[in-house]
Amino acid sequence: MSEPIAVERALSIVLEATPVLPFESIDTDQALGRWLQEEIKADRDHPDFDKSLMDGYAVVAADLERDLRPLRVVQEIPAGTDPAGLRAVRPGGASRIMTGAPIPPGADAVLIVEETEGVEGDPESVRPKSAVRAGANIARRGADVRSGEVLLRAGEFIGAAEMGVIAACGRTRVRAGGRPRLAVLATGDELVEPENAPGPGQIRNSNGPVLRALALRAGAVTRYLGIAPDDERGLRLLIEDGLGDDVLVLSGGVSMGTRDLVGQTLRSLGVEILFDRVAIRPGKPFTFGRRGSALVFGCPGNPVSAYVIFQVFARAALRRMMGSAHPAPVPVRGVLKTPVRQRPGRAGYLQARAAWAGGAYEVEVIPSSGSADFVSSARGNSLAILPPDVTSLPAGASIETLLLDDQPDR
Amino acid sequence: MSEPIAVERALSIVLEATPVLPFESIDTDQALGRWLQEEIKADRDHPDFDKSLMDGYAVVAADLERDLRPLRVVQEIPAGTDPAGLRAVRPGGASRIMTGAPIPPGADAVLIVEETEGVEGDPESVRPKSAVRAGANIARRGADVRSGEVLLRAGEFIGAAEMGVIAACGRTRVRAGGRPRLAVLATGDELVEPENAPGPGQIRNSNGPVLRALALRAGAVTRYLGIAPDDERGLRLLIEDGLGDDVLVLSGGVSMGTRDLVGQTLRSLGVEILFDRVAIRPGKPFTFGRRGSALVFGCPGNPVSAYVIFQVFARAALRRMMGSAHPAPVPVRGVLKTPVRQRPGRAGYLQARAAWAGGAYEVEVIPSSGSADFVSSARGNSLAILPPDVTSLPAGASIETLLLDDQPDR
Repeated sequence: MSEPIAVERALSIVLEATPVLPFESIDTDQALGRWLQEEIKADRDHPDFDKSLMDGYAVVAADLERDLRPLRVVQEIPAGTDPAGLRAVRPGGASRIMTGAPIPPGADAVLIVEETEGVEGDPESVRPKSAVRAGANIARRGADVRSGEVLLRAGEFIGAAEMGVIAACGRTRVRAGGRPRLAVLATGDELVEPENAPGPGQIRNSNGPVLRALALRAGAVTRYLGIAPDDERGLRLLIEDGLGDDVLVLSGGVSMGTRDLVGQTLRSLGVEILFDRVAIRPGKPFTFGRRGSALVFGCPGNPVSAYVIFQVFARAALRRMMGSAHPAPVPVRGVLKTPVRQRPGRAGYLQARAAWAGGAYEVEVIPSSGSADFVSSARGNSLAILPPDVTSLPAGASIETLLLDDQPDR
Repeated sequence: MSEPIAVERALSIVLEATPVLPFESIDTDQALGRWLQEEIKADRDHPDFDKSLMDGYAVVAADLERDLRPLRVVQEIPAGTDPAGLRAVRPGGASRIMTGAPIPPGADAVLIVEETEGVEGDPESVRPKSAVRAGANIARRGADVRSGEVLLRAGEFIGAAEMGVIAACGRTRVRAGGRPRLAVLATGDELVEPENAPGPGQIRNSNGPVLRALALRAGAVTRYLGIAPDDERGLRLLIEDGLGDDVLVLSGGVSMGTRDLVGQTLRSLGVEILFDRVAIRPGKPFTFGRRGSALVFGCPGNPVSAYVIFQVFARAALRRMMGSAHPAPVPVRGVLKTPVRQRPGRAGYLQARAAWAGGAYEVEVIPSSGSADFVSSARGNSLAILPPDVTSLPAGASIETLLLDDQPDR
């Protein structure tokens, strides 16, 4: 066992040890939620013809400056019309034009339909109700985007809007970061699976489902290896299995009990332990290692500790693996609703509920009976961070807070 | 066409018209990302036996008050031990105990292993290095949760932490809100699918992929109906198909062009139009209706308009359908980095990038060439809201901003 290292130091060791997975070339309809691993450039101007932004009439602006006589309608131009088939608009004339349709030669403005009226007895004409400045309601070729312009960069998240950019550029395949394969292994003779009734002295395994769900929400492909017994042979087999994935996340077995065999078993399997103590509360016995390109997160067995360790460290590693340019979590600052205190020496990551209240996040630390209280993380939506040298903060104090994105209700 | 109605009014009409889908009873491993539609109660005390919170020695606290003589170790108690098999601890004795293990009769505190040392020549004994107060490092039965306590309520999002609570309560099935089936239909003769090269006057359909991606990220099961031509017969067939789902989202065809046939086609198919104009920029021609329990969102064809209308209205409806207790988006407030201006009369929803900067969100409105600029939503991560009566705001002003959750990087 080594001395606990600071959270920032631990996170930087984790991220340095984390490989970016090889990119994959995938169909664009599989790209949502991945990270882009190439530049997306415009393959043409947008628009690639001068185009109307409104429904109305393509006119000669100077013509309407003189007076507002009726104009003869020479053509109707729906969106999708080939510009080659457009008839010229001259003074005294106008073409009915739809949003997105090409501007005919001669016209230099679009008068919106609401600013026109019909001419009684002359369905071929229209009367302008106002003048219009030259260029009005027209998007010139290339006004939105120039051909060759870089629209998306490597390391960007592919959300819904990015899917639109990719489609508009005519891409049917893109390079996206790989999805990490992640195995979850719970340890502890006291654990039974949720479908079983715990016997005397036993508890249900909630870490397995939580860690797997966190990994799924982060974008990993997950595998649940079950509950390992507290004996070295059984543990060894399951860990060896998990080391075949990109990431192995364990819960339990990293503390100071005589049955805490995870550290020694990992070492005996050739895992290089990069640290095994972090100055964080909860979660001090967090053990991190690697074998080849496989990472091992040995989380403590207490549910809150395992949850915090995943949110602070493992999630960042997964995002880096998937190609995110900004994998580390970024806290906001909120205003504490209730005083908090802690013993010094470790950074406190407290389950909290952050809610926007008028001008700031109000941060309410969830009362908890301790790190075994599996309900407190479900009651919270964020982690309030007390630095290691701070022993107390009063209500009203400013506090750094990680908003957790597995909660849609902020 | 009616007068534009206020955004708040439109959202309330949408939510009032939106049914909550019938709940489904599903396996818990399918529950992640759904909304819970029942209470989850503890089926037992947690812990359901007095339990050690640390690795150490179960002792009689008063015994160590007197002096720190070596204690005889009477038993080793790993986690998972049946409390019925525990030997009593009496003054002068101690039991080695692991985190999570049951406290033996007679003991009233756990001295952590770091506060003990071995006794040379006597492996059966241990020497305490300090006293310990009664009750230290013990979680009493029911300390975390009492049997019967309500731990999760209907309407809560099932994130990772909730998966743990559900598992700890022994649930293998839960009642979750249904997933809406949603059909996306793009309209416009000018559109070609992304895999095709646009001919003269044509553009690629980016709305289809964007609307589908937004719906997927919101939790819907989606179906893409393709591009409808601007003729009533073709449009009618595709709309009728889409009305078989819970939600039909259209883009285009709701403006004032002669080919804008969506409104009349919807009416002819028996869709009740609840409004067809909203005082929002972009997105004024947003048309909303229903037929039976099916909802229709007729979004404008401009990419930015369609994106904004989905984010502000359709997403809230989907969340309500799925059983969310809080479906409407809740804005935060940020500080404008750059001045903004608009014509009065409609609420401006401006593509923006919100970034936490020390003490507040800095909100930078994305420069855009207009509502056809399909790149601006990808450059942003939020929508800055200018109320209808505000024509300009200076840099440094406070502005309401919707953080969009299809972006993981805040």
